[in-house]
Amino acid sequence: MKKWVYLFSEGHKGMRDLLGGKGAGLAEMTRIGLPVPPGFTVSTEACNAYFDAGRQLPEGLWAQVMEAVRTIEDLTGKRFGDPAAPLLLSVRSGAKFSMPGMMDTILNVGMNPAVLDGLQDLTGDGRFAGDCFRRFIQMFGHTVKGIPAVGFEDAMRRCRAQGAEPGATPEAGLTAADLRRTVEMDLAIYREAVGEALPEAPEEQLRQAVEAVFASWFGRRAVDYREFNRIPHDLGTGVNVMAMVYGNLGPRSATGVAFTRNPATGDNELYGEYLMNAQGEDVVAGTRTPRRIKALEHDLPEAYAEFQGICRKLERHYRDVQDLEFTIEEGRLYILQTRTGKRTVQAAVKIAVDMVHEDLIAPPEAVQRIEPAQIDQLMLPSFDPQEKRAAVEEGRLLGTGLNASPGAATGVAVFDADTARQWAEAGREVILVRPETTPDDVHGMVAAKGILTRRGGATSHAAVVARGMGKPCVTGCERIKIDTRQKAFRAGGRWVREGDPLSIDGTTGEVFGGAMATVPPDLSRQKELVEMLQWADAFCEAPCRKTEDGAPRRGLQVWANADYPRDARIALQFGVQGIGLCRTEHMFFEEDRLPLVHQMILNAAEAQELYNAVERCAKDLQQRPQDPRVQEALADARQQVAGSAAVKAYEAALAALLDIQRGDFEELFEVMDGLPVIIRLIDPPLHEFLPRLEDLLESVTALKTRIELLRRHPDIARQAGEPSAADDEAQLARQEPLLSAVRAMRETNPMLGMRGIRLGLSFPGIVKMQVRAICEAACHQARKGNRVKPEIMIPLTGHVNELKVSREMLEHEARAAIQSLGVPIGYKFGTMIEVPRSALTAGEIAREAEFFSFGTNDLTQMTFGYSRDDAEGKFLRRYLETGILAENPFQSIDAAGVGRLIRMAVREGRETRKDLEVGICGEHGGDPASIRFCHQAGLDYVSCSPYRVLVARLAAAQAAMGTIERDK
Amino acid sequence: MKKWVYLFSEGHKGMRDLLGGKGAGLAEMTRIGLPVPPGFTVSTEACNAYFDAGRQLPEGLWAQVMEAVRTIEDLTGKRFGDPAAPLLLSVRSGAKFSMPGMMDTILNVGMNPAVLDGLQDLTGDGRFAGDCFRRFIQMFGHTVKGIPAVGFEDAMRRCRAQGAEPGATPEAGLTAADLRRTVEMDLAIYREAVGEALPEAPEEQLRQAVEAVFASWFGRRAVDYREFNRIPHDLGTGVNVMAMVYGNLGPRSATGVAFTRNPATGDNELYGEYLMNAQGEDVVAGTRTPRRIKALEHDLPEAYAEFQGICRKLERHYRDVQDLEFTIEEGRLYILQTRTGKRTVQAAVKIAVDMVHEDLIAPPEAVQRIEPAQIDQLMLPSFDPQEKRAAVEEGRLLGTGLNASPGAATGVAVFDADTARQWAEAGREVILVRPETTPDDVHGMVAAKGILTRRGGATSHAAVVARGMGKPCVTGCERIKIDTRQKAFRAGGRWVREGDPLSIDGTTGEVFGGAMATVPPDLSRQKELVEMLQWADAFCEAPCRKTEDGAPRRGLQVWANADYPRDARIALQFGVQGIGLCRTEHMFFEEDRLPLVHQMILNAAEAQELYNAVERCAKDLQQRPQDPRVQEALADARQQVAGSAAVKAYEAALAALLDIQRGDFEELFEVMDGLPVIIRLIDPPLHEFLPRLEDLLESVTALKTRIELLRRHPDIARQAGEPSAADDEAQLARQEPLLSAVRAMRETNPMLGMRGIRLGLSFPGIVKMQVRAICEAACHQARKGNRVKPEIMIPLTGHVNELKVSREMLEHEARAAIQSLGVPIGYKFGTMIEVPRSALTAGEIAREAEFFSFGTNDLTQMTFGYSRDDAEGKFLRRYLETGILAENPFQSIDAAGVGRLIRMAVREGRETRKDLEVGICGEHGGDPASIRFCHQAGLDYVSCSPYRVLVARLAAAQAAMGTIERDK
Repeated sequence: MKKWVYLFSEGHKGMRDLLGGKGAGLAEMTRIGLPVPPGFTVSTEACNAYFDAGRQLPEGLWAQVMEAVRTIEDLTGKRFGDPAAPLLLSVRSGAKFSMPGMMDTILNVGMNPAVLDGLQDLTGDGRFAGDCFRRFIQMFGHTVKGIPAVGFEDAMRRCRAQGAEPGATPEAGLTAADLRRTVEMDLAIYREAVGEALPEAPEEQLRQAVEAVFASWFGRRAVDYREFNRIPHDLGTGVNVMAMVYGNLGPRSATGVAFTRNPATGDNELYGEYLMNAQGEDVVAGTRTPRRIKALEHDLPEAYAEFQGICRKLERHYRDVQDLEFTIEEGRLYILQTRTGKRTVQAAVKIAVDMVHEDLIAPPEAVQRIEPAQIDQLMLPSFDPQEKRAAVEEGRLLGTGLNASPGAATGVAVFDADTARQWAEAGREVILVRPETTPDDVHGMVAAKGILTRRGGATSHAAVVARGMGKPCVTGCERIKIDTRQKAFRAGGRWVREGDPLSIDGTTGEVFGGAMATVPPDLSRQKELVEMLQWADAFCEAPCRKTEDGAPRRGLQVWANADYPRDARIALQFGVQGIGLCRTEHMFFEEDRLPLVHQMILNAAEAQELYNAVERCAKDLQQRPQDPRVQEALADARQQVAGSAAVKAYEAALAALLDIQRGDFEELFEVMDGLPVIIRLIDPPLHEFLPRLEDLLESVTALKTRIELLRRHPDIARQAGEPSAADDEAQLARQEPLLSAVRAMRETNPMLGMRGIRLGLSFPGIVKMQVRAICEAACHQARKGNRVKPEIMIPLTGHVNELKVSREMLEHEARAAIQSLGVPIGYKFGTMIEVPRSALTAGEIAREAEFFSFGTNDLTQMTFGYSRDDAEGKFLRRYLETGILAENPFQSIDAAGVGRLIRMAVREGRETRKDLEVGICGEHGGDPASIRFCHQAGLDYVSCSPYRVLVARLAAAQAAMGTIERDK
Repeated sequence: MKKWVYLFSEGHKGMRDLLGGKGAGLAEMTRIGLPVPPGFTVSTEACNAYFDAGRQLPEGLWAQVMEAVRTIEDLTGKRFGDPAAPLLLSVRSGAKFSMPGMMDTILNVGMNPAVLDGLQDLTGDGRFAGDCFRRFIQMFGHTVKGIPAVGFEDAMRRCRAQGAEPGATPEAGLTAADLRRTVEMDLAIYREAVGEALPEAPEEQLRQAVEAVFASWFGRRAVDYREFNRIPHDLGTGVNVMAMVYGNLGPRSATGVAFTRNPATGDNELYGEYLMNAQGEDVVAGTRTPRRIKALEHDLPEAYAEFQGICRKLERHYRDVQDLEFTIEEGRLYILQTRTGKRTVQAAVKIAVDMVHEDLIAPPEAVQRIEPAQIDQLMLPSFDPQEKRAAVEEGRLLGTGLNASPGAATGVAVFDADTARQWAEAGREVILVRPETTPDDVHGMVAAKGILTRRGGATSHAAVVARGMGKPCVTGCERIKIDTRQKAFRAGGRWVREGDPLSIDGTTGEVFGGAMATVPPDLSRQKELVEMLQWADAFCEAPCRKTEDGAPRRGLQVWANADYPRDARIALQFGVQGIGLCRTEHMFFEEDRLPLVHQMILNAAEAQELYNAVERCAKDLQQRPQDPRVQEALADARQQVAGSAAVKAYEAALAALLDIQRGDFEELFEVMDGLPVIIRLIDPPLHEFLPRLEDLLESVTALKTRIELLRRHPDIARQAGEPSAADDEAQLARQEPLLSAVRAMRETNPMLGMRGIRLGLSFPGIVKMQVRAICEAACHQARKGNRVKPEIMIPLTGHVNELKVSREMLEHEARAAIQSLGVPIGYKFGTMIEVPRSALTAGEIAREAEFFSFGTNDLTQMTFGYSRDDAEGKFLRRYLETGILAENPFQSIDAAGVGRLIRMAVREGRETRKDLEVGICGEHGGDPASIRFCHQAGLDYVSCSPYRVLVARLAAAQAAMGTIERDK
């Protein structure tokens, strides 16, 4: 006969699969001699057998249950259903994982009118006996039969003889007689709802309760929860049946819950609450105000001392903080449940590190106990939670947008970049509010504490720039209607005007009216965190076994994406080992540089056309050296270049930008002394640096319409109040060429257009200038004694020939720059792998690249065919909501598609070039699941935002440990 | 000692690698007893040895050469350098492939002053002797020493005693004395240019000539040519040395070239030209007008008869048309060269089919002799080449754009779609000229003979629609400046106005002013082509061995992309076996349907929002069936749907479109009776059906500006000539909502946005309507007795879950439609593979798809990260020009990247579903190289434009044969 039922004394903590978490805990505590009421667990196998048999209890089960009940009777000296010495039972579900939607608890199984009388006689406490019965009817009725609780609560109110205070709980102040009446009424409600009387036979009660627990395993909410969390449906639930102990048996009885350490702070102190003379869920139900656990030392000192000892014992036993339920029956302590205690991340870090010092656990286990993503919460300014709650209650939550860049910011609203800067310079903290941002707004973003936009997704200009700056940002908050002319926005019925206080939470996307206090982060003050990260790094340094190629390899290094020296400094403080991505074009977006950038762009096409003509003629001449017509043409072309205003303007802009970029890079190399710095050449399409086509079109059309109309009516033109026609025409003359330049550069799908390496090959002058700036800066720094490790990265390669041609041209420039300065420095050339084809042909591309850096943002966009800006607010959100996609592929690398390309590229790239340096610089570099993937795929490092470095260090260590574990 | 030199009598035609093409031909002709002057070939190995040794003739080579010369002396009875009986030699290069840039010929090697005298004495012909010497000096000087030809030509002119006719050739009318002077002057020019005298020793002349041939192998042009054509550099060239025979030895001497059949028409007749009393290159140089070969029968009847016999013999021997060089020396015929004759595609087809009937070759060989891409030339209307040449000479070539859709069209220019239709209805042939086209222009495109646009690439609206219609189209012709208001365009200095005649050649991209006659195609009249295609199809039907999976499989079927019944009819005439792609949305673009489509689109979002609300409430109710608030909310939502104007308009539009689409599909099924028809559900983003954002913005801005200004000056508003403010405001009221609708739908990268399956999942009503239309149409046709095979294709799948959800929803609709009509029909559901991720996860996707169709246009765009519209005119052109890309990946499948994805997807898709039907429906389906790839990758069919079907049938047969060949 199959064994379906296990006495607590027959199990142990390793039997979670068979007994469920709760059952295994009770068995373990019984095994190590803690005071657990006698009981047993019906196994998860029984649950599965029940469903396999079409909701029939399997053969032999009930006999085993009743036999176990007999054992409890023997141990307690009470009898199930015997009014003279009634044994009551609690019945609770218990699956391997705690699961919302599962039936929880039925107390006092075994109650019936006869037992009620017996219990009253036995204890002399009519209130106690009545309370037990009404609880049983209510729980059984509600959880087994689905009768709404509200009817029972109503009954209690109606049965109360004395009036209660306003707002009191339904059961407050019920006398024994009230409770008798309540019981009568509850039985009637039950009969009415179910169509038959409450079963009086204890065995029948127990059978229905056990079956109800089983049935709840396939209840709708439980099934949905498992589907969502990908928990298999065939785990089944156990049923725990235990002798009742009574925390409601008078003044020396109590019931409570407690953590062995403070789950909020991690402090090593008991933390919990209890109620005197209460039962079951009363503590957490909030019906009475419980007392802090320390008070128990005063109320019941012996029981408290025993409890303290048990807590210590359990913590040592489980090597972790425990969350306990206990009951004290007339001074005697019982432990009813133990499980690992949930805690805040602050507490988790402190507890893990403390436990290492207490020799409870080893450092690796401490590192693995922290969810890396939570580290974020330690390192960001955040709003005081209480203040936030209050703001919501006061109706100050104005809307919720995309949580584009985490952190909390508070300040006064401003609606344009110039005001933002002026006010910031005057010492005010401002939040910049814009419909969306453009490069023209960057100086305002620099000045602001936080950025709020109405439009744009997680890769909108505002979002990307804000994340780069580590500045809180909420984008796409469509509920706010901005009137930039009035300098105000409306949300709901409320207006927020320039100068009004405003608070944004970039971690959640919430926008609040009014100011709110923030709590700033400070790594140095978090000594436990610092200690844990040192353990993590030590792990990554040690070689561990790889899953993919079997070769021993160290864990991932963590590098940072940093565009400015100030970002690099922050990253260094957080412990990076290199810069994985410096986006040179972000330097172009700064306000003082934009005019130069415009000058460069607006003259580039014409200048390049002339250069190309010279080149073509020179080539012709090589073929026909004697042909006088070719010689003439070459001279002609050269003269055109020399005389061209466009060429002059283009070259002047490049020369000025060379000086600026050289300065930027020098400082970056200085900060990163001794560490590698990957600098990416210009990537975005040039039109991103110019005003938007639509804005220009609108302005030009308005001007033209006005001019035309005023020409027909010159009399108005002279009237006061109208701008002069000359002004209009001057404006038009400025804007029209710009419009046609922007039009000429317009692209249908700019993401797949003239950018990256394509731009560099079309306008070599720009990238040559950048390479020269990098090399000259490196030489200058090397001369000062700094150790520079520049790595020049070419974006968007799709074909090896693109890289070959670019690299030859740029290496030539690099060598020339280095030779002219006479300081021998080393450098690397490499490429981003962000176009699917580059991953598919990585073996070829590695011939021309000393390093690969996966740009997983673009790689994900192109592999899925998703334009992130377009997708995220629209179908992607729907896909995530409906479960078509389990995860957002822009947050966590899609292993089956994008990940497959990455693994192919790493393998085939290294086949071509053994020492190929491989990393990732997309936003995934800061995502723990993606970091795990990167480790398994054999990458050398992940590069992420400076503010994600701590997360990444921890995740990298866990990934390395994961590999070791699998190899055991 | 290595053998470097082969007498002609020692070789044969199989020795092309060692002797080069020319040498092998001479040896073969010698072997089969044709009259070839004695001679020998220096092997290609000698050439390679020469370069390996640092440009030194290898050991033993020269001795072998001189020994072979001795053999020639013996055979001819002449002596090299002997004035009494001088042997002169011709020296010619000859590599395996004929190659521009290689040195060609030096005649008369062995001439010097003594031989000159001897020759004159011997022949008594001072003119002949002098002509031989001056030819030698000029050829040796020019080709061996690089002296410009112009100096020598000048010398001849100056030496001519008598005046020549204007425009005469330099050597015309030179007397013996003139030639003596010319020789003197040429020797002086040589000495001046080279710095030393012309070598007089014949052996030295020969050595320098042989080395010059070798050296030309690594000449710049030859190297470039090989690089471009991917010919290995280590093939080397042979050197052919042969006794001179003299076509310039008096009136019974002649020289000429001839084809064994007419290379223009394929007619079985000798075709060629000759000159009496001439030497070498005179025939092709155009210095004298040669006579047609037939005339030789009169001039030298015996030699002609012998030549006819030799032609027949060589054709039988080589089993192909030969291109011969011959010389007749005093009545005696010599053959100097034979090679396979180049021919037009018309000739190629006729010759191949004729030769099968003549039992010269077997049908497979005939099929393989035709370049499939050339078939196009047979099946398109084209311009009369002579007329075209004349137009160019007259300066009527106005510009060249992209050859977007092949064929020639002529008509009068119109500048708007309405006029196009009106004029066409009035019987005029029109060419529609637009800056670019939109859906609003489709009726005009239907009416026009051809389409010309200033903007847009090969996938612009104009190009795609025109190709679909099989209508000639030139896009992106930027040289024409269109003034749509004036209804005219300017190109160069010329204006073309409405009604002016215009001709466009969509095959070449040329645009001509004026009308030009076109030659229409007619398959039925091309009986040889029809016969050859039958052989081709027979090949594809037979199973052949696959390269990839080793399983026997038949060749590719050819299906067509056809959106309308009329396309399907054309495709059927061309012999397709199915429709591989019917783009339903193209039906939406038709003028009478656009208003309905607009109505559908403009109400879709609001209606869907309401439907979604109902669905959400219904779901809630399932969870909380007793909750009265949920019940209320559901009733509320239902009421909102019922009362919504948007829902009413949306559903009315869908109902009307259902009727229209059902009709379209019925006709399509009727035409394709018995063959599969793949219908793709809506793919493009909805905003493509609406007016352009920029146009709307411009119009709205102008209206607003006017209204604002006129409000401030009401007096003007009342003046004559100004449109009334009321009119303006009415217009604004119409346009503003449209503008904001288009704005709301705007996407940054529409190619990667809300389209394809994403659209279907967001607006299920549209795709459900389409599926219902397909199934109802199929049922109606089945009821009429037609055999229908509908296959429903879902575009743009990237994740299996998208397809799973879509398919479940749509199959439900399909079953409902079929059940309601009660006609049991079969259907398939499948998907396009056009997103890289779908190829990477094809094994999963095949679970939900009964067929795959590779959309290689989009797959190429996303794999390369190229937006074709943006790339083609810009960096892609540059990439092709500079050789970064060897081929345009939009024309020929990129095997390394895109092709790798396709092969993965086919393999893994079939692993999941053995009988998965796999085809391709991108434009690559009509490209021979891509068809070969598709065959190797194991596809079942290629689907292409109806007008590419013939090309594809031939290419498919050749691909299948190629496989067989490899397996031999």
